[in-house]
Order: sequence, then C-alpha cells, then structure tokens
Amino acid sequence: MAEPRRLRAPVFEIGLKGYLYGAEAVSLAQAADQVSAELGVSIVFDPQAVDIPAVARATEHLFVFAQHMDPVTPGRGVGAVLAEALKAAGADGAMLNHSERRMTLADIDRAIGRAREVGLATLVYADSPEEAGALALFRPDIILAEPPDLIATAHSAATEMRGFVERSIELVGRIDPAIIVMSAAGVQTPADVAAMIRLGVGGTGSSSGILRAADPVAMMRSMIGAMHDAWLELHPERIKA
Amino acid sequence: MAEPRRLRAPVFEIGLKGYLYGAEAVSLAQAADQVSAELGVSIVFDPQAVDIPAVARATEHLFVFAQHMDPVTPGRGVGAVLAEALKAAGADGAMLNHSERRMTLADIDRAIGRAREVGLATLVYADSPEEAGALALFRPDIILAEPPDLIATAHSAATEMRGFVERSIELVGRIDPAIIVMSAAGVQTPADVAAMIRLGVGGTGSSSGILRAADPVAMMRSMIGAMHDAWLELHPERIKA
Amino acid sequence: MAEPRRLRAPVFEIGLKGYLYGAEAVSLAQAADQVSAELGVSIVFDPQAVDIPAVARATEHLFVFAQHMDPVTPGRGVGAVLAEALKAAGADGAMLNHSERRMTLADIDRAIGRAREVGLATLVYADSPEEAGALALFRPDIILAEPPDLIATAHSAATEMRGFVERSIELVGRIDPAIIVMSAAGVQTPADVAAMIRLGVGGTGSSSGILRAADPVAMMRSMIGAMHDAWLELHPERIKA
Amino acid sequence: MAEPRRLRAPVFEIGLKGYLYGAEAVSLAQAADQVSAELGVSIVFDPQAVDIPAVARATEHLFVFAQHMDPVTPGRGVGAVLAEALKAAGADGAMLNHSERRMTLADIDRAIGRAREVGLATLVYADSPEEAGALALFRPDIILAEPPDLIATAHSAATEMRGFVERSIELVGRIDPAIIVMSAAGVQTPADVAAMIRLGVGGTGSSSGILRAADPVAMMRSMIGAMHDAWLELHPERIKA
Repeated sequence: MAEPRRLRAPVFEIGLKGYLYGAEAVSLAQAADQVSAELGVSIVFDPQAVDIPAVARATEHLFVFAQHMDPVTPGRGVGAVLAEALKAAGADGAMLNHSERRMTLADIDRAIGRAREVGLATLVYADSPEEAGALALFRPDIILAEPPDLIATAHSAATEMRGFVERSIELVGRIDPAIIVMSAAGVQTPADVAAMIRLGVGGTGSSSGILRAADPVAMMRSMIGAMHDAWLELHPERIKA
Repeated sequence: MAEPRRLRAPVFEIGLKGYLYGAEAVSLAQAADQVSAELGVSIVFDPQAVDIPAVARATEHLFVFAQHMDPVTPGRGVGAVLAEALKAAGADGAMLNHSERRMTLADIDRAIGRAREVGLATLVYADSPEEAGALALFRPDIILAEPPDLIATAHSAATEMRGFVERSIELVGRIDPAIIVMSAAGVQTPADVAAMIRLGVGGTGSSSGILRAADPVAMMRSMIGAMHDAWLELHPERIKA
Repeated sequence: MAEPRRLRAPVFEIGLKGYLYGAEAVSLAQAADQVSAELGVSIVFDPQAVDIPAVARATEHLFVFAQHMDPVTPGRGVGAVLAEALKAAGADGAMLNHSERRMTLADIDRAIGRAREVGLATLVYADSPEEAGALALFRPDIILAEPPDLIATAHSAATEMRGFVERSIELVGRIDPAIIVMSAAGVQTPADVAAMIRLGVGGTGSSSGILRAADPVAMMRSMIGAMHDAWLELHPERIKA
Repeated sequence: MAEPRRLRAPVFEIGLKGYLYGAEAVSLAQAADQVSAELGVSIVFDPQAVDIPAVARATEHLFVFAQHMDPVTPGRGVGAVLAEALKAAGADGAMLNHSERRMTLADIDRAIGRAREVGLATLVYADSPEEAGALALFRPDIILAEPPDLIATAHSAATEMRGFVERSIELVGRIDPAIIVMSAAGVQTPADVAAMIRLGVGGTGSSSGILRAADPVAMMRSMIGAMHDAWLELHPERIKA
C-alpha cells in the first residue's frame, strides 16, 4: 500500500461474518484480490479481526475492513476494537452498525469520527432510507441500506426494493452526494447482483450467497463479474482495469 | 506450542486493554515471555484481537488470551469474536465478562462451553464472592474476582479485601477447587502484588499499573518477581524455574 | 395486603409480556385473583409496568411482579425501573433475566440485592441447570429454568425435559433448597401443565398459551386447575383452599 | 384531555429519572401542572413508568412522558415498554435515547414510528449537532441536543454552548423546521435557564437542578418563570396564558 487508494463505485462487499476464518479466509481474500485487479472494482473484504493482519499482508487491492469497531480511544476498554490497532494491523476500514451488531446513534457518530482520525474508511448499515439519510450527516464513505427482513434470505430484494433504494439514494444525496450508497439484501446469485446494480446503487455484496455456495471462489467471481458487467451497461465510462 | 501447556497458579495477567497495540504489544509480550520462562509462572497476556497472531508467533511461554469472545458458532454473527477463529490465530484462551465488557449470564454460560469445545482456556471476571461462586458452576479455568469500585484506582485493594477474597475462594472451592481464583483490583505496585498473593489467591494482574508506568517492561518484571517471591513464601514447593 | 404473604409452591406464572395491557390486563388479573383464592395456589402476574398500580389495587391474592427491574438506586438512571418505585406502586416482586430481556451477571446480582432491600420478591430465569445453580448463590425466591429453544413453541417440553428439570432442581437444592424451582418452556395446554408439575418442579406458567387462547380466562383457569390437581397427586398434604 | 393538545415552544422538561416516585412525584406534577396553566408553557414531565397513571390522572396541562419506550409491537417482549400500554395509561409521549438509556439507530427509527402510530409524541436526545440533524429525518416532535460531558454537572452550558446550539438548530431546521430543538446540559439555576433560552432554543429543562434543590417545587417554579420571561423578551408575541 505504497500510495493511498480510494474506494470508488462500484464496490462489492464480501461479508465473511463467522463463516470463514484462518487460512481459508486468506485464500478467498487472495482470489478476491485478483478479481479486483482484473476488473478494476473496489472490493471490501471483512474477515474476523484476528485474520486482518494475514489478509492485509496477502493482498494488494482489497479494502480490508474490520467487521466492527468501537468508538474508544487508546486506554481502557477491554474487548473494544480500537481504531489505532486496526490501522496498525493493516486494516483499511471498518463496518459499523450491521444488523447483527447494532450500535447506538452516539457510538456510530463517535466511531466514524475515530475512523477518520486514524485514516480508516467506514461502511455503515442502515435499515431504512431515513436511517441512510441520517447516517449521511456523519459522512461515512459508504452507507449500505437494506430492509432488515430481507437479509440472509433467499429472495432477491431487487424486485421489491426499487422504491427503498431510490429513496435511500435521494436522502443520502441531499446531504452528501459523495457518499457511496450500496444495498445488498438477499443477494444470493449473480442475477441478484446485476438486478441490484440496475437499481442504481453504487455497489452491493453478499455473505451467505458466497460463503455457503458449493464453490465460494467461483460464486464470488461470478457475482463480481455480474456487478462489473451491469455497471458497465449503466456507466460505460466509469470502469477501467 | 508442540505440547499442551496448562495454566497453573500462580498466574499473572497483563491486561493490555487499549493501552498498547501493534509492535509495542509484541515487544512487551516478548519481554513477558522471557519472564515466564525465567520464573516458571503462568502469564496471561491479552492483546487486541488483531494483535493475537503476532503475539502468538513471537512468544512461547505466554498464554495469549483474547480480551473477549462471543458465544457464537461458525456462521452468522458480524463483529462477533468466534472461538474457532481465535484458536486458529494462535490464542490459548479468552477473557470473559470484564467490568468493561459485561456479558449476560446466558452468554457467559455458552461462551465457556464454546471455548471448551475448541480447546481454549477461559478467565471470567466476577464482581462479588457470590458471582465467583456462581461462575464456578460453568467450570472456567480461572475466576478473577474483584470489587468493581476498586478497579483501575490507585488504592491497593489488599488491605480492605481480605474478606472479599477469602469468601470468593471458599465459594468457588465448594463447587470446584481446581478452578484458579485470582484477584487484581487496584494493583499498581509490586507491593500491591505481594499483598494480594498473601491473601491466598492463585494469581493477580495489572493493567494501568504496568501500561502507564514510566517503564512498562521494568514494572512488569518487578510485579511478576514480587508475585513469584510472595508465592514461594507461601508455597515453597510449588514453583520451579 | 394487610399482612405479608409468602410465595409458596405450587406457583403459577401468567406472563403478560406485551400481549395484554390496560383494562384487559386488569380483568384477567381479577379472574386470576379469584382462582388464587379458590385453589390456594400462588400466582405470579406480571403486567406492563404502567399497569402495576391498577392490577395491585384490583387484586388481593396475586403476586404482582414487574417484568423487569434494574439494579439502580434512587437518583440517576433515565428509563431504569427503580425498586423503590415498584414497591410504592404496589408491586410484590420483579422478574429478572427473561430470555427476552437478558441481564448481565453483575446486574442480576445487584438487582436481587436491591429487591431484597426494598422488600420485593424475585423470579429469575435460567437457560440451563448450571445457570439455575449459579443463580441460587444470589438467593432469589424463584428460579425458572427452561431451555431457550423451547420457549413459546407449541411443543410441550415435558417429554424431553425430565433430565433438564431434575438437574436444575438438584443444583439449586445443593445451594439453597428453599428456592422454588419452576419450569415453563413450551407450556400450551393444561396437559402440558400437569406433565410439567409431575417432573417435580415447584411451579410452572404460560404466556402465549393463555394470552393467545380463544378464551384466555378459561385457559388460565384450566391450566391452574391442572397444576392444582397434579400437585395434589404428588403432595397431598401441601395445598388447602 | 378532552381535546388534543399540542406541544409548542417554549417547552420545559422536568426530568425525574429515579429521584422521585410515588406520591412525591404526583405532588411535584400537580405543582408543575399549575405553573403550566399560569404561564402557558408546555411542560414535559417524565416519571417512572409505574407513576404515569397517577400523574396523568392528577394533572391536566402537563405532557406526561415515559422515560423510555421500546420499538416493540403488542405480543412478545418481556420487560419492553409498549407504546399501546403507555397510551392506555394516559401518557402523552416518550423520551428516547437519553444518555443514560442509549438506543440503537434502528430502534430509535422504529420507536418514533411506533409512537406516531399510537398517537404519542417523542422527545429524542442527541449528543452532537450532527446527531440532532440525523434524528430530524425521523420526525420526532422534539430533539434535545446537549454535549454529553456537560450533563448533570454544575456548569451552565450556556457560555460554551452557543456554537453547539446554533449548529443543532441549523441542521435540524434544514430537514424539518417544525421540530422543536431544545438543550438542557448543565442547567442548575434559573439564570442557566434564561441563558439557554437566549441561545435560541425552543425549550430547556432540568433534572438534578430541580430534584436535588432544597425546595424542588420552588426551584421548578423559578426555572420555568425564568424560561417564560426570557422567551417573552425574544418572542413577545408567542406566549399567552
């Protein structure tokens, strides 16, 4: 990481959760790193905290994100994930407020501030267009808006989500159009990925869709390929390898 | 770690919290590793999760503990600290229920079970002798009982704590005498360490007393030396280098 | 409440949760009060906090419990349920650590202490026999042990729960045999109630089984009648109307 | 409450927390009710949940608010404060996200929605101007913005808070100028109240400043009198008795 890289749309998030760890997480990261290089898309990869150093060392193009970060400063805070420690370990950013790890409003506010202080990017989850707009006030890099009921289900959210996504983009855009608005609810197949991109988002992602696939690396490649192609249709000028 | 090591009294816990991370945490760990080898005492060292792999690689004698672990199983659980991932990263155990990271009773119960399943040791915090006795039912390796008001203050708990410690040892011993009972509240100096050991505990520890000392490595050495000497007075047969 | 009443086995708990409130909660309480008088069984009735005063005024025999209480003392604590305020409002006790409202070990410890200070009884939930035994150290009046997976399902826990219940009773009894051990998981019918009592518990209860019945008052009467009859079979000397 | 009343600036919030309960809470409420009638100012009064029915019955002009409300719907949710139950008990609204009772962003979003569904007003706390702006997206009736460090201290926030308050008002006003913006940090005297109003807020309040005063009723009267007078200076047309 000799020079600062910038997250830019389209972004694909690979949500490892607790599905994969250790050597297998590093292998998937390396495969994703190659895809990122080939297709010129930003990939956010979020392993278990203990796997961040190995993933950061083994990859060049990925944006390695912690799955959670706390708003603490150096000092007390047993078990709290410290911004400075993530940065020193090679992380590029942190996810905040995922539906499986809710944060209070005050902690989101402060955690985004802490990330900015140490040079980490942030991807914050929102449950509604209004939450997406609200989060924009704190200027994270990415807001990922998805209806909580659709997460981790087999239904593609694409068909029922047009209104949700459009309103999220509009409310965030009013506050700060530079923030990337993503959505990912229910993405299980490459077709889901393409449908999501066509809704106008700046990125999408998958967790169980990749991690529980028969061949996670192949599924990851297919999904990111589908994102790349759908993006090119809409924004032919915006990607170069 | 070619062969399984066992935690045995006296145990000294070095509580890194968010005071130290990255290369400095590894340096302190290496110094502590040497002290452990020299004096034959078990040292629990608990860095930030992202620093566990480097600390585990750089040391041989330390018991490397996560500051927190969640009761999740592989799969969902964004931001949750997974037992299997800790184990794969080289951790030897996990701290649970510290006063800065409280857990529900159900989560403590399940987290100790998860640690046992994957071969991690556990050190669980208690606020009262009754809590210490209660935790013994779950069979952790270590229970660290300390009155919450004394933590991280400059007052040595030793003088006012005899009754607290004795009752903690008694209640835990009734359930399972193999569990090591530690206490550490307010330990700021080597004299505090010796006084605590003389109360009859199976170990003690320090966080800010070491990390905020002018020379943390020297303070760590002095404290563990004081523990070793006080222990030898009481249990001359129990330590060999 | 001219004279102090004591909870004694068999106890039936009517778990209102958020199913019923206001005038309907008072009506059900009055019907339960009559059943308590007729059959001589202790009934724990736990309405929404705002309904405690009206339920306490409208009944004579019920033990009116708050659904939750916090370990705070008078003073700060916005939104915290204060022991003194419950007592002044006519409550007889408080439920703690229900699976829908988990508490930390430290808060359970302190909340039971606070309840005792102001003269409130406590009913604490446990997920496992070991948790039941652990909670006994804090000397609540009642421990309600139930496997979390069975709660609010239609399956009676009775058939698969013999071992769970027997071990809970044994572990609690070792610490303090005066504590009433209840279990209630999955109780949906009067037959479930009887089967649960025959496992040897000191009481049982139901929430959705009553509140979602076509006729909640009739179901409540039938269930408590079934408890009374099953109890008489086992302990012919222990109930008088 | 034969006809709907509307909260309108200036609003004074009397934060009971756990300082006062039972008959004393009702007495203070009655005194405040009289002040509200005399001066024509909206007073938000927030007792312990169990005291809401008695306070609501004993007063006519106060806006009786719960100290906390959960985003649950009728049904499950032991210990959760249900909107419908508050409404049936006579509450006019609910406070949300106080610094002593933080809520997740998702829960704030949903709780405000639930309050609206049943006809309860909402007062939501913010720690920063950005949080105030963010909360405006959810359209609560009142946003009370205060720097967390100043709460419950003896320092009037007025001198150092001009920038904080002005930016809060601006950010909220951009989203929805109908939302009342209050601030209350550190208000301990009538002079603090007047200084706060002169910063341009739509209301203020006090908790320990009133409840720990030698004569809480007199202090409450003086503070609200000071608010009324300071408000008249700035907005001579806006109050009528």
